[in-house]
Amino acid sequence: MPRRYKSQPGHRMSLKLPVPPRSKLAPDLQKYFAVCDERIGFLPNVLAAYSFDQAKLRAFVGMYNELMLGDSRLSKLEREMIAVVVSSANRCYYCQVAHGQAVREMSGDPALGELLVMNYRAAKLSRRHRAMLDAAHAMTVAPAEFGEAERASLRKAGFEDRDIWDIAAVASFFNMTNRMATAIDMMPNEEYHSASR
Amino acid sequence: MPRRYKSQPGHRMSLKLPVPPRSKLAPDLQKYFAVCDERIGFLPNVLAAYSFDQAKLRAFVGMYNELMLGDSRLSKLEREMIAVVVSSANRCYYCQVAHGQAVREMSGDPALGELLVMNYRAAKLSRRHRAMLDAAHAMTVAPAEFGEAERASLRKAGFEDRDIWDIAAVASFFNMTNRMATAIDMMPNEEYHSASR
Amino acid sequence: MPRRYKSQPGHRMSLKLPVPPRSKLAPDLQKYFAVCDERIGFLPNVLAAYSFDQAKLRAFVGMYNELMLGDSRLSKLEREMIAVVVSSANRCYYCQVAHGQAVREMSGDPALGELLVMNYRAAKLSRRHRAMLDAAHAMTVAPAEFGEAERASLRKAGFEDRDIWDIAAVASFFNMTNRMATAIDMMPNEEYHSASR
Amino acid sequence: MPRRYKSQPGHRMSLKLPVPPRSKLAPDLQKYFAVCDERIGFLPNVLAAYSFDQAKLRAFVGMYNELMLGDSRLSKLEREMIAVVVSSANRCYYCQVAHGQAVREMSGDPALGELLVMNYRAAKLSRRHRAMLDAAHAMTVAPAEFGEAERASLRKAGFEDRDIWDIAAVASFFNMTNRMATAIDMMPNEEYHSASR
Amino acid sequence: MPRRYKSQPGHRMSLKLPVPPRSKLAPDLQKYFAVCDERIGFLPNVLAAYSFDQAKLRAFVGMYNELMLGDSRLSKLEREMIAVVVSSANRCYYCQVAHGQAVREMSGDPALGELLVMNYRAAKLSRRHRAMLDAAHAMTVAPAEFGEAERASLRKAGFEDRDIWDIAAVASFFNMTNRMATAIDMMPNEEYHSASR
Amino acid sequence: MPRRYKSQPGHRMSLKLPVPPRSKLAPDLQKYFAVCDERIGFLPNVLAAYSFDQAKLRAFVGMYNELMLGDSRLSKLEREMIAVVVSSANRCYYCQVAHGQAVREMSGDPALGELLVMNYRAAKLSRRHRAMLDAAHAMTVAPAEFGEAERASLRKAGFEDRDIWDIAAVASFFNMTNRMATAIDMMPNEEYHSASR
Repeated sequence: MPRRYKSQPGHRMSLKLPVPPRSKLAPDLQKYFAVCDERIGFLPNVLAAYSFDQAKLRAFVGMYNELMLGDSRLSKLEREMIAVVVSSANRCYYCQVAHGQAVREMSGDPALGELLVMNYRAAKLSRRHRAMLDAAHAMTVAPAEFGEAERASLRKAGFEDRDIWDIAAVASFFNMTNRMATAIDMMPNEEYHSASR
Repeated sequence: MPRRYKSQPGHRMSLKLPVPPRSKLAPDLQKYFAVCDERIGFLPNVLAAYSFDQAKLRAFVGMYNELMLGDSRLSKLEREMIAVVVSSANRCYYCQVAHGQAVREMSGDPALGELLVMNYRAAKLSRRHRAMLDAAHAMTVAPAEFGEAERASLRKAGFEDRDIWDIAAVASFFNMTNRMATAIDMMPNEEYHSASR
Repeated sequence: MPRRYKSQPGHRMSLKLPVPPRSKLAPDLQKYFAVCDERIGFLPNVLAAYSFDQAKLRAFVGMYNELMLGDSRLSKLEREMIAVVVSSANRCYYCQVAHGQAVREMSGDPALGELLVMNYRAAKLSRRHRAMLDAAHAMTVAPAEFGEAERASLRKAGFEDRDIWDIAAVASFFNMTNRMATAIDMMPNEEYHSASR
Repeated sequence: MPRRYKSQPGHRMSLKLPVPPRSKLAPDLQKYFAVCDERIGFLPNVLAAYSFDQAKLRAFVGMYNELMLGDSRLSKLEREMIAVVVSSANRCYYCQVAHGQAVREMSGDPALGELLVMNYRAAKLSRRHRAMLDAAHAMTVAPAEFGEAERASLRKAGFEDRDIWDIAAVASFFNMTNRMATAIDMMPNEEYHSASR
Repeated sequence: MPRRYKSQPGHRMSLKLPVPPRSKLAPDLQKYFAVCDERIGFLPNVLAAYSFDQAKLRAFVGMYNELMLGDSRLSKLEREMIAVVVSSANRCYYCQVAHGQAVREMSGDPALGELLVMNYRAAKLSRRHRAMLDAAHAMTVAPAEFGEAERASLRKAGFEDRDIWDIAAVASFFNMTNRMATAIDMMPNEEYHSASR
Repeated sequence: MPRRYKSQPGHRMSLKLPVPPRSKLAPDLQKYFAVCDERIGFLPNVLAAYSFDQAKLRAFVGMYNELMLGDSRLSKLEREMIAVVVSSANRCYYCQVAHGQAVREMSGDPALGELLVMNYRAAKLSRRHRAMLDAAHAMTVAPAEFGEAERASLRKAGFEDRDIWDIAAVASFFNMTNRMATAIDMMPNEEYHSASR
């Protein structure tokens, strides 16, 4: 039996910030956290981290929910696929763990989560999904070069202008959160690792 | 007398989205746009673009204002300096124009706006500002490599953990908006070019 | 219940090569494959692929076993850790899956496998292991720049010349297999995904 | 009213070299400097810097004038456009400031100068100009890969072999001056900043 | 007459390893070394280095000979051309020297050895050879991006699946040896420099 | 006996330009070419290429001779060493061949020419030369990042400000000629290959 190796010893983020107990948060945020407990089974560490400043937490949650759960012609799984490919390009540990699990769960295909984390080009994807992920990857690693040719590739794969906005918006959002999570060394909840395998 | 060259012919973004007339927006957003008119002298094109979907506009404005105008130990000029350095690394035309102007105006130093757009390393900066901009640049171009050494450099330059959060948050936010603006080919208002020279 | 997404439909490699049935291989290779069945529970796809040419299979197995299982002052887990970090830098799907599982199993720490796949810099590692993985990463992504300074970092972390040889040899070997597996589009056995979670 | 920020405090270059007073220069160089005063309104700092060694100054001026002012089927504005795009790719502060101003002045389009400094791909350009600037950019950032395909793109956009020489010669020249100016930390004259806005 | 400059003073590798005298090696290895003396005129330093551990030496020689001298539809010269292009991309001094000499000798074209070391794109090559070297280069510098498009380019140039395996295998092998030789600072035998000029 | 491979079939440059016979050049240039014949043994192809336009030829020769042959505290060999390292980083075939030969000849050390072409970091160099070549390399591959730290490294290795100018000037010049030679596909004279081996 292997000895237990210490790679992630109960650590949540590197910064020392005055994160309050949940019972001190405003009632609407306490309620939101309770919904997370219920739906996810635990409170994602990112929300705990942001709760040191309730205005920041509200702004983050507002944008996140609009983007990932709001109305769009991209399915929720497609938005999670973009999240993982962007997070893989930026090598954000938190987001690859959390959104990799979401892809495994939503797709019912554990290998898909691994493929998008490790190298999305190795996956057998529909033309629509390959174009979508190529665009998300391109705008992540070479933002200055994204232009009309890249928009044309998306249109050829069947995406309309509103969809292009949404692909760009999700890919851009994770370029923000990836950097934030890495900069403060945020660690994902351990529950993600074994879920949906 | 030079003939007028056509580099930016009255164009605002490449996507065709159902941007409504301002008079059709919800009253709170009409009011917000009126405040922009008043304070800036015109409505920034980014806000006009987002107004095709009022939920997205509210989420964007909410996060932007919290970050750039909210409470922080970073001055507003410092936050604009980060915005320009990140936008320069990503070569986002919209954000370099708009926030370059903000730096020129807030600093009273037209050359500073140019330096941060062109190569912040050429500027004579305080140790605090050099460390702040080095961190913003590093997290933009090599997010996977940002770690304890980079946080230590910020601490040595006098930043506390709360400040590190704010530097990371502003740099991360512009990594989002830069990609969004480039992906949809958003053009800045022409008024920025000659302002604060 | 999610519909089953098709990311990896029973595919083993892109090249059409005359892979024989196991019963046609030379007796020593049949025996070696039987040992694999016994010890691993299945025959790794890489060995099946190489079996189209028994001379190539023998050369590959000879070098692999000497390197990963032979005598060394690096533990077998340490050699697998190097394998994963190199394969992550090169984004080889096959090797990240197969050796990521080996790290999970040998370390008894499922999160460690994920950390090394996703961004080894996010792991809390001993000084020895950080130096070892930094060297393996450096020689993978910037081989031309590896020199006396890099060897000195290894020596400072306690490695002797024989260990430096072994770190270099394992990292170099996976720079070979990563390229080979990606070039022929080799897919890992599905059994790896759920193992040791 | 903003306090004056100190980003460029009266500094011309980092090296301490025996730059003589203009009155000590050879008569032909004194005369050339007087022409600069007359035509530009001031003596560009680059010429002052080179004047510490009159042989170097003459060689530099000889090549510069042949290239930028001599006979060519590229207009002088086109040569300045190449200068800015190359200087932007290399992030040379001096050359972006000085030649960005030249583009603003010669084109009568202040936004064009900004576009070429910030990201030339965001400009609406003729096919000829896009091909010309793509070639200048490619030869700057990936010189080893410039080959027959790149020459063919220029020919397809209407350039003849003599024009290809001239595009290459101007782009190459600024790859020299950009590195020289950055290496010695040469600062542009402040007059450029507000001119032609 | 120039004084003799000291760039490579009788040095073979940086690591201090217990390399035995040849007379202490197993008889089969002594015989193999004698064949090298005979055929090459000297014992390549790489073999001397590996001889500190006879199991490693046997594994290395086994794979090398199978790959470079074994049965293949690639000529031995073609395999050496791949070796040089990969070693040039990785800037491995040992392998560029040794295999550059092999290309000069086998091709009877001294300039070809130089071209492949310095920039293979500058050589006038057959379509087959350009495709072969483009693939070897691509899999060296961007392994994660090698996929169906790259295999298709090889097929269009006339390569069959078995050939693609061989191109990949040789290119991958030198990605291993390049890193190994650089990591231990292995120097090539001086005899190579003047041979086949 | 190997068949003769065709890698460089009597080709001088890709552009078709009206290069005149030498007898039609102005007398001073004819005389200069005769000096080249005498001193080098042949007319370097670069001079033949430039002679399609005598003004360009004069400007080029003027700058080249001032820089490489003029007064400097860098020896002529040191200037050639910089030329080769820059040309290697840019992978310019012409300049690596021509200046590699110059290094072999001036140093009396054939291996030195190879080392600087292939990977200057593998050479055993004096501290002065390593610092000089590190600076030339850095300003070639990352011009935007060259700053006070890089100048300080040169000063620590004993270089004064005048020397820093000269190192920068030579490195910058070859960043020009490398791009020019590659852009027009200029081929070096075959005589260089076997000389000084």
